[in-house]
Amino acid sequence: MSKVIKGGTIVAADRTYEADILIEGETIAAIGPNLVGDEVIDATDAFIMPGGIDPHTHLQMPFMGTTAAETFESGTMAAISGGTTTVVDFVIPDGPDGSLIAALDAWEGRAKPQVVADYSFHMCIVGWNERIFEEMQAVVGRGVNTFKHFMAYKGALMVNDDEMFASFSRCAALGALPLVHAENGDVVAALQQKFLADGVTGPEGHAFSRPPEVEGEATNRAIMIADAAGVPVYIVHVSCEQSHEAIRRARQKGMRVYGEPLVQHLTLDEGEYFNADWDYAARRVMSPPFRNKAHQDSLWAGLSSGSLQVVATDHCAFTTAQKRMGLGDFTRIPNGTGGLEDRMPVLWTRGVTTGRITPNEFVAATSTNIAQILNIYPQKGAILPGSDADLVVWDPKKTKTISAAGQRSIIDYNVFEGVEVTGLPRYTISRGEIVWKDGQNEAVPGRGKFVARRPFPAV
Amino acid sequence: MSKVIKGGTIVAADRTYEADILIEGETIAAIGPNLVGDEVIDATDAFIMPGGIDPHTHLQMPFMGTTAAETFESGTMAAISGGTTTVVDFVIPDGPDGSLIAALDAWEGRAKPQVVADYSFHMCIVGWNERIFEEMQAVVGRGVNTFKHFMAYKGALMVNDDEMFASFSRCAALGALPLVHAENGDVVAALQQKFLADGVTGPEGHAFSRPPEVEGEATNRAIMIADAAGVPVYIVHVSCEQSHEAIRRARQKGMRVYGEPLVQHLTLDEGEYFNADWDYAARRVMSPPFRNKAHQDSLWAGLSSGSLQVVATDHCAFTTAQKRMGLGDFTRIPNGTGGLEDRMPVLWTRGVTTGRITPNEFVAATSTNIAQILNIYPQKGAILPGSDADLVVWDPKKTKTISAAGQRSIIDYNVFEGVEVTGLPRYTISRGEIVWKDGQNEAVPGRGKFVARRPFPAV
Amino acid sequence: MSKVIKGGTIVAADRTYEADILIEGETIAAIGPNLVGDEVIDATDAFIMPGGIDPHTHLQMPFMGTTAAETFESGTMAAISGGTTTVVDFVIPDGPDGSLIAALDAWEGRAKPQVVADYSFHMCIVGWNERIFEEMQAVVGRGVNTFKHFMAYKGALMVNDDEMFASFSRCAALGALPLVHAENGDVVAALQQKFLADGVTGPEGHAFSRPPEVEGEATNRAIMIADAAGVPVYIVHVSCEQSHEAIRRARQKGMRVYGEPLVQHLTLDEGEYFNADWDYAARRVMSPPFRNKAHQDSLWAGLSSGSLQVVATDHCAFTTAQKRMGLGDFTRIPNGTGGLEDRMPVLWTRGVTTGRITPNEFVAATSTNIAQILNIYPQKGAILPGSDADLVVWDPKKTKTISAAGQRSIIDYNVFEGVEVTGLPRYTISRGEIVWKDGQNEAVPGRGKFVARRPFPAV
Amino acid sequence: MSKVIKGGTIVAADRTYEADILIEGETIAAIGPNLVGDEVIDATDAFIMPGGIDPHTHLQMPFMGTTAAETFESGTMAAISGGTTTVVDFVIPDGPDGSLIAALDAWEGRAKPQVVADYSFHMCIVGWNERIFEEMQAVVGRGVNTFKHFMAYKGALMVNDDEMFASFSRCAALGALPLVHAENGDVVAALQQKFLADGVTGPEGHAFSRPPEVEGEATNRAIMIADAAGVPVYIVHVSCEQSHEAIRRARQKGMRVYGEPLVQHLTLDEGEYFNADWDYAARRVMSPPFRNKAHQDSLWAGLSSGSLQVVATDHCAFTTAQKRMGLGDFTRIPNGTGGLEDRMPVLWTRGVTTGRITPNEFVAATSTNIAQILNIYPQKGAILPGSDADLVVWDPKKTKTISAAGQRSIIDYNVFEGVEVTGLPRYTISRGEIVWKDGQNEAVPGRGKFVARRPFPAV
Ligand SMILES: [Zn+2]
Ligand SMILES: [Zn+2]
Ligand SMILES: [Zn+2]
Ligand SMILES: [Zn+2]
Ligand SMILES: [Zn+2]
Ligand SMILES: [Zn+2]
Ligand SMILES: [Zn+2]
Ligand SMILES: [Zn+2]
Repeated sequence: MSKVIKGGTIVAADRTYEADILIEGETIAAIGPNLVGDEVIDATDAFIMPGGIDPHTHLQMPFMGTTAAETFESGTMAAISGGTTTVVDFVIPDGPDGSLIAALDAWEGRAKPQVVADYSFHMCIVGWNERIFEEMQAVVGRGVNTFKHFMAYKGALMVNDDEMFASFSRCAALGALPLVHAENGDVVAALQQKFLADGVTGPEGHAFSRPPEVEGEATNRAIMIADAAGVPVYIVHVSCEQSHEAIRRARQKGMRVYGEPLVQHLTLDEGEYFNADWDYAARRVMSPPFRNKAHQDSLWAGLSSGSLQVVATDHCAFTTAQKRMGLGDFTRIPNGTGGLEDRMPVLWTRGVTTGRITPNEFVAATSTNIAQILNIYPQKGAILPGSDADLVVWDPKKTKTISAAGQRSIIDYNVFEGVEVTGLPRYTISRGEIVWKDGQNEAVPGRGKFVARRPFPAV
Repeated sequence: MSKVIKGGTIVAADRTYEADILIEGETIAAIGPNLVGDEVIDATDAFIMPGGIDPHTHLQMPFMGTTAAETFESGTMAAISGGTTTVVDFVIPDGPDGSLIAALDAWEGRAKPQVVADYSFHMCIVGWNERIFEEMQAVVGRGVNTFKHFMAYKGALMVNDDEMFASFSRCAALGALPLVHAENGDVVAALQQKFLADGVTGPEGHAFSRPPEVEGEATNRAIMIADAAGVPVYIVHVSCEQSHEAIRRARQKGMRVYGEPLVQHLTLDEGEYFNADWDYAARRVMSPPFRNKAHQDSLWAGLSSGSLQVVATDHCAFTTAQKRMGLGDFTRIPNGTGGLEDRMPVLWTRGVTTGRITPNEFVAATSTNIAQILNIYPQKGAILPGSDADLVVWDPKKTKTISAAGQRSIIDYNVFEGVEVTGLPRYTISRGEIVWKDGQNEAVPGRGKFVARRPFPAV
Repeated sequence: MSKVIKGGTIVAADRTYEADILIEGETIAAIGPNLVGDEVIDATDAFIMPGGIDPHTHLQMPFMGTTAAETFESGTMAAISGGTTTVVDFVIPDGPDGSLIAALDAWEGRAKPQVVADYSFHMCIVGWNERIFEEMQAVVGRGVNTFKHFMAYKGALMVNDDEMFASFSRCAALGALPLVHAENGDVVAALQQKFLADGVTGPEGHAFSRPPEVEGEATNRAIMIADAAGVPVYIVHVSCEQSHEAIRRARQKGMRVYGEPLVQHLTLDEGEYFNADWDYAARRVMSPPFRNKAHQDSLWAGLSSGSLQVVATDHCAFTTAQKRMGLGDFTRIPNGTGGLEDRMPVLWTRGVTTGRITPNEFVAATSTNIAQILNIYPQKGAILPGSDADLVVWDPKKTKTISAAGQRSIIDYNVFEGVEVTGLPRYTISRGEIVWKDGQNEAVPGRGKFVARRPFPAV
Repeated sequence: MSKVIKGGTIVAADRTYEADILIEGETIAAIGPNLVGDEVIDATDAFIMPGGIDPHTHLQMPFMGTTAAETFESGTMAAISGGTTTVVDFVIPDGPDGSLIAALDAWEGRAKPQVVADYSFHMCIVGWNERIFEEMQAVVGRGVNTFKHFMAYKGALMVNDDEMFASFSRCAALGALPLVHAENGDVVAALQQKFLADGVTGPEGHAFSRPPEVEGEATNRAIMIADAAGVPVYIVHVSCEQSHEAIRRARQKGMRVYGEPLVQHLTLDEGEYFNADWDYAARRVMSPPFRNKAHQDSLWAGLSSGSLQVVATDHCAFTTAQKRMGLGDFTRIPNGTGGLEDRMPVLWTRGVTTGRITPNEFVAATSTNIAQILNIYPQKGAILPGSDADLVVWDPKKTKTISAAGQRSIIDYNVFEGVEVTGLPRYTISRGEIVWKDGQNEAVPGRGKFVARRPFPAV
C-alpha cells in the first residue's frame, strides 16, 4: 500500500520547494506534483523534512557505577516523538582489554528487540592492544565506520596521546572516522580534587572543574594528532568558543575537522548549575558542562558559517535517584542529560524562528550533514527517490511547553522544562511507517533496523 | 527526440553515484538505472556534472578607454569548450549619472544575438542618485537580483561609503544581493602615483600599487557596511589571506558573507609580473593582482572549509595590442585576463587531482553554490529531474597542454599557456543540446537564453 | 630649597624598589637611600610614581555649537588632584581651510595663563591643502610632533582616505606620529538618520548608531593607510574588541600601531545609556560610546599583554545644561565626558587591586609609555636623575567615594559618581612643587609649562 | 681602581642617550656627563648596552648517551666574546627519581671552577614524587626560581600532563616560574618510527618528525595547564607561528605567558636539513628544528609587538664526531647546536640593521626582559647606578664573517658559518672587569659568580 504526502513544502538541505512525495513500502518512490497513493498524509501548511538523525546517544549505557535509565525502547520512542528517525549509539567495550566484538554483540542484543527507530553504532576505543587493532577491521565489517576516543574520564574510559595516534592511524588505514570526546582528563581530575578539597561538593563544582580551556586544549590536541595520522576527525559535543576556535583554525589550514554542538549547549547556560535546588542542578550535570551566552553565540555562528556541521544531544539520561549518587561529591553524579525528544523543536524555535539559521541549515544540521559525514547518505538524510522514507511533516505553527509530565522519555525530569517551542512534528514517518501522529506513538518495539555504514576509501 | 547519458558516474555537490540521465527537450526528465532515449551519449569512465556557471565575466566590456576584445560569441564559445554553460556578465551604466535600464538594454542588445551559452546579468552601481534608487527596482523586475559596487577605479567606477550604504540598504529592501570589488581606491591611486613618480612604470608597478592589505581593508569595510545595512554581501575576486580573513571573521560572527576566488589567483603567482617580457607581464595585469603561494594556500583552504564558496574567472580579455596602451605607464594597461575556457580543467587539475578539494566540492564551487547564491537553483547548478539539462560529461583521464594556439577564445595569448591539465569535458550539453564534443563547438550564436533571477525575500 | 621624599617605595615601569628621592628645583637630583633635603615629604607606606600624563584632553574645546565648560584652569586643577601632572590637548583649526598656526596660537593663548599642570599639544588635521602641508612643518617646529585625524564627525572634522594618506605621508617625512579617531563617519551619519527616522531620539540612539563594528572598521582602515604611507599610527580611544583585534592583527605583522583605551571604556558599560533619566544618560554620551563587559575584558587584556599601551580620558566635559542641547535629538548632544581627576584612582582600583595589571604596568600605562610614544621621555614619565620632578606619592590604602560634590572639576556631575576608589594621591608634585596635598590644591594658574616634543627621525 | 666608559651612547631598553659610566669595583657607580675614573674605556662611536644574558644553555650536558662537548669554560668564553655576560644553564636530575639537590650540587661542581661569565641555573623536573615536591622548596632556597618541563623526549626527560599540573601548582605555591619545552613527545616518537620505517634515516627525518603543529599543540597545552594551576609560564625555544599563535591567544585573554625564540630559528631555515652533506645537516639537528621563512617572520613580529620577549640560543653543542652517533638513524643524532658566541651579532645584523627591531628592543630581548622575567633585574639587565657593571661596548660598524675557524667555542663547526655580521662588541665588561677586548679574552676560569634568583611572591 502506497502513501502520498500532499500539500506540503519540502525543505531539503539545498532548497525549499513544493511537491508531493510518494512512498512505496519503505522508500521514497517519487517526488513531484499531483502524486497519487493509497493513503494520503496531509502536509498542508507544513514543511516536509528528512527525519532527524541523532549522531550521539547513550541508551542504557553502563556508566559511573549505574546504567542510564533511558532504554532503547523509551529513548527511540522519545526520538520519533520529536521527529528523529535514526539514532547512533556508542558501544563501549568492557574495559581497556575488553573485546570490541563482544561489546558490539551486547549492544545489538540490547537494542534490537527494543528500538522503534532505526539505529547505528559508533565503537569506543578505551584502550589499545593487538586485539583491538585486529578487531577494528571486523567492526568496520559489521557496518561501524566510526571510532570514539575519550580524552577525559581518567581511570575509566580515557586514552592517552599514544593510543589515540595508534587508533587514528588504524582508522586511516580502514577508512574509518575517529570521533573524540575532548577534555583534558588529567586536568579535570586534578581540578576535581582541588575543588573537593576546597569544600566545593555540589554540582557547581562540576562546572568549575571543566572550564572551556580544558575542552579547547583537548580539541586542539585531537586535531593535531589526527592531522599527524592523516585522517579527518569529528569532535563530539563542542560546547565552547575555545574548542570551536581550534576547529576553525584547523579548517582554515585545509584540515578536515567536523564539530558537533549539542542542542543543550546552544540554549542552556552555566547559570543552571547554581540553582539552589541540588536536584535541579545535578540533573543538568553533563560533560562538557553548559557554558555562558558568549559561547552559545559562537556555536550558533558555527552552524550558519559551516565551521560546525551537526547538532546532537549526547542523550544519556539518568533519573533523579541516580543523580543522587553524587550527593556530597559532584564527581559521583552520573554525567548526562536527555534531549532526544526535544532536539528538533528546540533547535527550530531558538534557531530558525530567530533567524540564526535557515530552515535549510536546520535540515543540514539535524539530518543531511550527519548522513553525509557518517556515510549513510542518501539512504538517510535526503528526500530523494530511493531514499528511505524517513520523513517528518513539520508544523511550524504548532506549539507546546516542554514538560517532563508530557514526555515519552521515561526520565522524571527534563532539562528544557518550561521552554515554549514553536515548530513540532505533525507526523513522523520511519521507512514509510507513520510512527508518530497526533501526539501518539504507534510504533512496535523491535521495528527499528540497524543501519550499516560502509567505510570511506582508506587514506 | 530524447537523449540519454549512459554509463557515467554522477557527481553532484552532495554525493557521487552511478546513474543514467534522460533528457527530454531542454530539461532533465529522469535519473536512474537503465534509462532509454533516442540518442545515447556515452559517459563510460566519465563523471557527469552540472554545467559550470561562471558568475563573473566582462565580455565586450568598455573599460579604460577600449573595449575587451573577447565578444559574447567568442567568450561563450570558450566557455562551453571548457564545460561552462552559463555566464553572468556585468552591466555597467554610462557614468555615475547613467541609466541602469539603458545600460541593461545595451548589454542585452549586444549579448542576445551572439551568445552560445546561457547568460545572466549583474548590474553595477557606479554612482548614486534618485533615478538609480528608482531604477534598481525595475532592474530587479528584469531578472537581475545582484548589484555590484567598485571600491576601486577612482575617478571612474568607484563609489564611496555613503553610496555603498545607501545602495546596500536599497538592496536589502528589494531582496537583492550586493557584490563588491574590494580594493581601497584612494590608496591604490596614491600608490600608483608614488610608484610612477619613483620611476616604476612597468607591470610590476601594478602589483606593487595594489598590495593585499589594500584589498583586505576594503573587504573588511564592505562587510561592515553590509552588516550595518542588514544585507548579506558577496566579495568578488578574493585574492588574498587578508581579504579571506575579513570574510572568515565576519562569518564567525554569524554574518552572511560570500567570497569568490578566481582560478587565476588560486594557481598563478605574483612572480608573473616580474617576467622580463613586458607583453608577458602586461597580459597578466588584472585587479587584484596575483599573489604569492601563501595566499593561494589560504584560498584553497577556504574552498575546502566553506569560508569561500565559488570559483570564477573575472574573464575580461584584452589583446596584446590593447595591453600595450599601458607601455610606459602601468596604470594605463587595461585590467583583465581570460580564464573562461580553462577554469574547470585548471581547477580540477590543481584542486581535485591533488586532493585539496573533493569532486563534490569542485561541483559546488563551479556550479551548485553559485546557482544557490544567485537564486537560480535548481534550474541551474543541479542534476535533478526538472533542472535545465546543462551538463558536462567530464573525462578525468583526458589531458591537454593549454595553449593560445588551440583555444576558442579570440585572444592572442593565454595566462595558463603551457599548463598541463588532466580532466576535460568529453561533451558539454546546454539545455539538452550537445554544444561541444570531440573538440568541436557545434553551437549557433544566439542560441543562449537569458536566465532571469528572482529576488530573495526582502530583509 | 631642596626637597626629599622619604620612606616610600618607588614604582617605575620597569621595577619596584625602596629609595628616597631628592629634588633640587624642578628636577630629580638623586635617588637612593638616606638622602637629605631641606624639606621632607613623607612617603611612608606609600608608592612614589611618575606623575600621570593624560595624552588626550579637550579643555575649553569649541565643539558641536558650544564650548566644553571645563577650562584649562579647572581641568588641570582636576588633573593634579588625581595625580596627573601633564595633559596633552588637541588644537583644532578653524575649519578645513583654517590655519594650523593660528589655531596653535589661539590654544596657547587660552592655556598659558590658566594651567596649573604642564601641557603639550596635538594638532588636528581637519582638511587638506597646500597651506596645511606647509604649516605642518612649522607646527613640528613649535614642539608638536603628533597630528590627529577624525574619521568621524562627517561634515565637521572628518577627513577622507585620500586626505589621511596625504597627511600620514607628510607625517612620515616630518618624523611626526599620526593619531586617529577611528569610526566610519559615513556609516555613523547614516545610522543616526535611520534611528532618528525610527523615532529613537534619546541617548540610547547614540550608542545604537555607533556600534563596535563601525569603530573596528575605521581602525583597520587607518592602520592600512598608515602602513601604506610608511608611518606608525596611534589609535585614540580604543573602546572595543573589534578595534583592538585590528590593532593586534597589525602588530602581529610587525606594524607599529599604538592603542589608547580610556578609563571610561575600561570600567563603564553601555547599560548607562538606558538609564531612565535623560540627563544621566546624556552626560555619558561620548564617542565611541561605552561598550559591554566582553569589550572591557578585551581592553584590560590589551594592557597586560602590551597590545594596548596607554590609558587616557578624552576629557571633554560639558555641563548638564550643555548636554540638553540634544533633548529630542541625540545627534545634538555634545559628545564628551570628564575623567581627568579620576583616571588614576579608578584605574588603580579596578586594575591593580583586582590583579588585572601590576603596579608597574599601571605606571607604564598612565605615564611612562605615553612619554615614550610622545617623545618626551625621560623628561616626563620617569623617575630618574635629571627628569622633571613630576611625582605622585600614592597612598594605596586611601579611599574615597567619587562624587561631583567633592570634585575639582567645575562640571555639575561625574560619570564615576558613587564609585569607591582605593588608592589616591597623598601628594602630587609638579616640577618639584607640591601642587596637591591633604585634599588641597596649592597651585597658581599659569604655573604650568608648555612641553615641547621633538620629532622622531623621519622615516 | 675605578673605570669610566667615555664617549658612548647608552642604549637601554627604555631609551637611548649619551652619557659616561663610572664603574667602582664590580658595580656601576654613576652615569652622567664628564665622569672621571682611573681607567678610561673608549666608547666613541659605540653603543653601551647591558651585557647580554642567555637564558637557555646546556653546557657539558649529558644527553642522548654522550655529553655536550662545549664546557662551562669554553662556553662562557664564547659568551663573553659575543657580548653575553650571564648564562642560565639547565640542571638535569639523574632520571625521574633523581635528587634535585644532588643534581644542583653536581652542576655547581662542574660550573664553578670553569666559568668566566656569571651563571645561574634552571632546575628540570623530569619525574614526579614526594621527594621532588619537597626538594623544590630547597632548590628555590638555593636561588633557583625556575623549573623546566619537557613535553618531548619520550622515555627520557618527558613528563605527562598530570605531572606538569602538579609541578606547576607547586611552582605557584613557591613563587617559581615553570618553563616548558613544548613538543608532543608521543607524536614525535610515533612519527620518528613512521619515518624510520619508511626508510627516512637522514637528518631530514628529524625535521619531518617534528612539524610545527606538534610544537603548537604542546605550547597550547602547557599554557592551559599553567592557567589551570594559576601560574605564569615561559615557553622555551618558540620556533613557529603555531606556537606563537597559542601564546598570543593566551596573552589576549590576560594570561601571563612568555615566549623565547632562539636566534637560530629567527635566521636559519629548514632548507638546512636537505643539505647533501650529512655532517652539514646533522650539525643543525636541534629540537624544535629550523622552520621556513613564514615562521621567521612571525617570530620577528613577536619581538617587535611584545608577544615574544626574549632571544636565547639553547646552546648545546656537540662535535661532528658526536653527531655521527646518528648515522643511519636520525633519532640518535644528539640534539643541539651552538649560538652563544653569535647570538648578539647575528640578532643585531638581521634585526636592528634591517629595521625589524629597534636598538632598544634589541637590549630588551637580549638582556633587560630576561633579567626581569628571571627576577634578577636590575642587578643584571640594566644600566643603573648600583647594577652589576655587566656592559658591552658595541661597535655598530665592526664586521666579521662568522667562522668556526675563528670562534672561541671548542666545537669544530658553526651553524652560522659564512654569515657576515655588522655590529660586534668592542669590549665586554663583566662586573667591572674587561673580559674581552681586541678580539682577546682575558678572563680567568672560575671568575664567574653564581647569580641567585629570589622567588616571586607566591600566587
Ligand atoms: Zn562525551
Ligand atoms: Zn557522549
Ligand atoms: Zn573587479
Ligand atoms: Zn570583474
Ligand atoms: Zn575622538
Ligand atoms: Zn578626543
Ligand atoms: Zn628543549
Ligand atoms: Zn634546551
